[in-house]
Amino acid sequence: MSDTQETRIAKARLEEFCQRVFLFHHVSGEDARTASEVLVAADVLGIPSHGVGRLWRYVEGLKTGLMLPRADVVVLKDTPSSVVIDARGALGAPVSARAMRTVIDKARQAGSAFGCVRDSNHFGIAGWYARMALEHDMLGIAMTNTAALAVPTFGRIAMFGTNPLAFAAPADRERAFVLDMSTTVVPRGKLEVYERLAKDLPDGWAVDKRGRPAVEARSMLDDMQERRGGGMLPLGGLGTMFGGHKGYGLAVMVDILCAVLCGAPFGLDVYDTPTSSARVSHFFGAIRIDCFRDPREFRRDMDGMLEALRGSPPAEGEARVWYAGLPESEREAENLRLGVPVLQKTLEGLRAIGRECGVDLA
Amino acid sequence: MSDTQETRIAKARLEEFCQRVFLFHHVSGEDARTASEVLVAADVLGIPSHGVGRLWRYVEGLKTGLMLPRADVVVLKDTPSSVVIDARGALGAPVSARAMRTVIDKARQAGSAFGCVRDSNHFGIAGWYARMALEHDMLGIAMTNTAALAVPTFGRIAMFGTNPLAFAAPADRERAFVLDMSTTVVPRGKLEVYERLAKDLPDGWAVDKRGRPAVEARSMLDDMQERRGGGMLPLGGLGTMFGGHKGYGLAVMVDILCAVLCGAPFGLDVYDTPTSSARVSHFFGAIRIDCFRDPREFRRDMDGMLEALRGSPPAEGEARVWYAGLPESEREAENLRLGVPVLQKTLEGLRAIGRECGVDLA
Repeated sequence: MSDTQETRIAKARLEEFCQRVFLFHHVSGEDARTASEVLVAADVLGIPSHGVGRLWRYVEGLKTGLMLPRADVVVLKDTPSSVVIDARGALGAPVSARAMRTVIDKARQAGSAFGCVRDSNHFGIAGWYARMALEHDMLGIAMTNTAALAVPTFGRIAMFGTNPLAFAAPADRERAFVLDMSTTVVPRGKLEVYERLAKDLPDGWAVDKRGRPAVEARSMLDDMQERRGGGMLPLGGLGTMFGGHKGYGLAVMVDILCAVLCGAPFGLDVYDTPTSSARVSHFFGAIRIDCFRDPREFRRDMDGMLEALRGSPPAEGEARVWYAGLPESEREAENLRLGVPVLQKTLEGLRAIGRECGVDLA
Repeated sequence: MSDTQETRIAKARLEEFCQRVFLFHHVSGEDARTASEVLVAADVLGIPSHGVGRLWRYVEGLKTGLMLPRADVVVLKDTPSSVVIDARGALGAPVSARAMRTVIDKARQAGSAFGCVRDSNHFGIAGWYARMALEHDMLGIAMTNTAALAVPTFGRIAMFGTNPLAFAAPADRERAFVLDMSTTVVPRGKLEVYERLAKDLPDGWAVDKRGRPAVEARSMLDDMQERRGGGMLPLGGLGTMFGGHKGYGLAVMVDILCAVLCGAPFGLDVYDTPTSSARVSHFFGAIRIDCFRDPREFRRDMDGMLEALRGSPPAEGEARVWYAGLPESEREAENLRLGVPVLQKTLEGLRAIGRECGVDLA
């Protein structure tokens, strides 16, 4: 069977499977539901890098105690428009969903509100939390720092993570605008694909341990892993010629909002060890649209903007222009209808996880 | 005299000159002061593209009535954590400074606050407004949309502006972190430089009217000007291979926050005509750090972060690693000491402006 063969599985079935795996590993019913929902949502939206293929990492985390099924989550600071939560090693998604709900509730009163979650774990796709604001006619914001993988402009040592940021704004007839982007040119997974294919890396994706454009993925990944130097380049690529300093600045901004703002580890201090997970931090925000104008009029203008973008003439050789969130929404519609595509290799991994807990994927 | 020759002029003298020019053109004393301060600040920080070299455009705007010296600025909406201001064609900087002050005042009570300014004009460097938050121990945010110059990923028509965004966070011993970046790879001015030098454009800066990589600046700028197609590429460049869709998403996010959020023109509808300036919109934000943690501890950790970045080993062939705001602060220190460098050509332009109003630059 080929590596790229996919089996389509109904969303509800995938979610139930993940839930039962989490329950087996002592995660509470509600948290198991949220963690499963966020994982499966990535596959549904066509972002399998953050989907059920990651379940084994969560299971490993729970087994080794790097992720705690029932962490003693505490609120460190609480004001009418802000919250700081110490997740104390909890699974990332459930505590993040609660934080975003809190932020939305606070914004309902205060107009806008923000929250940090520290000492957390992988929270899935940032866009999932930003999207939570949409049904409340709010703008949603979500960010996370990650283990250090990316080098600053003119540098040669990874000093910060791929630090994704998400921003969501509602529309009416059009799909919502949902920007969900890492602040590096590409995620680490892309380099791993090139490594497997033994292909040379495109110029501008990563640098080697001397800070020169990395050509060969294997040695670059090894050096980065062993912390000998080298790493992913920030959005904009090498140097300043194509704006690499802008991606670098965005990545640091994400680290400031997620980590410095709540006193959590940042930069180089975010990394996995055998006894501790990366202990990443997240940042969430919600802004009420009706503090500025009637949300119906806002959504109507969003329709106009997004329709104009999508309807603008494509470049020669391109099929169409889209906007952030549109391809994901289209894939979602298809995957809800036909089932969620799961790669053969991922499916085998899920079955192996299931066998361990006596849970059948069927 | 060479084009690159510079004369150093004391900051106060440059500011006073601009002020008197604005006063001559019926701008009020306070607004003349602010507009001058923002213009000169760009030169002081080493960003001459946004400095006094632009004074003639402001003067032209005031003379033709595209910019109003005493516009009837009105507050359209006001809540404890938000404000929407209609600048009604005012000079951009004074109304923007007032808006940011209002946002900071509101944040003092509400924890965080945001404001939109619509129907405005060029406001100078976005970072100037973001920096205003620093002395209040707040995080500062400022954005603006601009006349449409940039093409969406896979498109060939300019659908949005260079839409800069700025984010500022205070430190103690280190310079403040101030990210101030357009969301295109390069600003339009860079293409104009290549045009003058008759140099081929680097691949990934701009596309021609067919949406293919633009090589020759002259025809590309002409086609864009005449709206036949072509334009600047968003940060990340052509297509998705280097993350061009991320820069595109950021630019649209800026347009949403500045314009859609307050019902102002966006995208293609932002452009100069003989009877109307681009009528751009801005977005400002402030977030109180002490809603999350003790600002002194925040600044101490910022010092740690920024020191680590700046101290990280440079790539082979590079002198050092810096962070957003550091080079500008260093140039500021030098320019305050030695005087602000003004290009010979700019100086001649200033003198010509001065002669018209009977103001001497000396």
